[in-house]
Amino acid sequence: MSKPLILVTNDDGIVAPGIRALVEIASEMGEVVVVAPDSPQSGKGHGITIHDPLRLKKVNVFEGIEAWECSGTPVDCVKLAKHVVLKDRKIDLCVSGINHGSNASINIIYSGTLSAAMEAALEGIKSIGFSLDDFSFDADFRPGTPWIRKIMQYTLAHPFESGNLLNVNIPKLPADKLHGLRICRQADGRWVEKFVEGRDPSGQAYYWLSGVFVNSDKSEDTDILALQNGFISIVPSMHDLTNYEAMGSLKEMEDF
Amino acid sequence: MSKPLILVTNDDGIVAPGIRALVEIASEMGEVVVVAPDSPQSGKGHGITIHDPLRLKKVNVFEGIEAWECSGTPVDCVKLAKHVVLKDRKIDLCVSGINHGSNASINIIYSGTLSAAMEAALEGIKSIGFSLDDFSFDADFRPGTPWIRKIMQYTLAHPFESGNLLNVNIPKLPADKLHGLRICRQADGRWVEKFVEGRDPSGQAYYWLSGVFVNSDKSEDTDILALQNGFISIVPSMHDLTNYEAMGSLKEMEDF
Repeated sequence: MSKPLILVTNDDGIVAPGIRALVEIASEMGEVVVVAPDSPQSGKGHGITIHDPLRLKKVNVFEGIEAWECSGTPVDCVKLAKHVVLKDRKIDLCVSGINHGSNASINIIYSGTLSAAMEAALEGIKSIGFSLDDFSFDADFRPGTPWIRKIMQYTLAHPFESGNLLNVNIPKLPADKLHGLRICRQADGRWVEKFVEGRDPSGQAYYWLSGVFVNSDKSEDTDILALQNGFISIVPSMHDLTNYEAMGSLKEMEDF
Repeated sequence: MSKPLILVTNDDGIVAPGIRALVEIASEMGEVVVVAPDSPQSGKGHGITIHDPLRLKKVNVFEGIEAWECSGTPVDCVKLAKHVVLKDRKIDLCVSGINHGSNASINIIYSGTLSAAMEAALEGIKSIGFSLDDFSFDADFRPGTPWIRKIMQYTLAHPFESGNLLNVNIPKLPADKLHGLRICRQADGRWVEKFVEGRDPSGQAYYWLSGVFVNSDKSEDTDILALQNGFISIVPSMHDLTNYEAMGSLKEMEDF
């Protein structure tokens, strides 16, 4: 049997340590091709580039691994991988990350890492976004490695429904404090934001986004609680945003 | 009773005809404040600006209406409206659009218009994204006007759950061919994409995103079908991307 073809991408950019850690794990189990942004793209959500052309350049970043850097968003990277770089080839798995920072709870909708994974899922590719709850550039990705390996092996071995992806978050803990995997739902948390206001060198006002994440969702099956308890959270996620419960009560609007 | 405070935004930019049409309708029923992008932001999804400061400028674009243009994404506009422009005031309704082009089906995840509406919903504000299925700058927004008015009036008069929003799409039809409102779910359609490849004036290769929307979802309660049948589609939408059905079958991964 031929080795599986694994696409690796991220949103922190092709030189981030997190993608390097993921490339190393992926290359143990398949043929790896990297298509990742040429600059940090955190918080780009499901953004795509419509009004500008995209650039794509083959680069030598990972020893012995085919790698391309792209001028666009993480979602652009997946589209270019599917339709240009790996055109006519079947991609068996897409892994995105490892993100420097958590993408649990509501962060999934802002995250370029998870949006890339969702885009792959929309293309019918099995897809996983990995994030470590540590924003620092020097984050230690080693404790999570055996668990990432396990999740990728499971995913390669089992069928997934088109349009689905896994949102995997790893707590910042040493290896002996990681208790295992938990299948969770997305906690209903929010960012409480404020803008730092200032003046630039020419005297013009600016506003810079800042904020803290607050989770008021106290139920027992959330990703946030799993992380707090030392587990790696796995939220099976999808692209259907319909609020089915609300459909019934809103029916009366048709005759309003 | 004081007039409701209505925030208006969009993704086509503050000078697009679509937002002008929406401001006119909104100002019939409340005090309107506009915070909208200073340039087109289509396809920005739920992108936010983290690595750069934002600019905010009071502009005179709509006669007698307070209006601000912002250098960021549609989601940035909503955050700035909530935390800077309308700080300490209760926003009764946020309307985003009218988008030049459909945001039915999977388009909700790419759309800046709908992401702005979702961001407002996350802030606990009643929120609606409006789109007309006509990409042209000269699109005729008049046939949809009575229906937009009706949907806004209903929304102002009824409670909504925090985190929910309405994704409203209007077919491109004359007034006498618009049959009414339909509460729908998001059709499971996809973009089938290709990249136009070319060379820029300096000889460097570029890739430009292109594609066609394809709907293979043939069930009877979708937004796409409603639009095809001459109805205005309303999809109650939300921010929880958990695939609850998949949680059960994936439980075995915990012991893999």
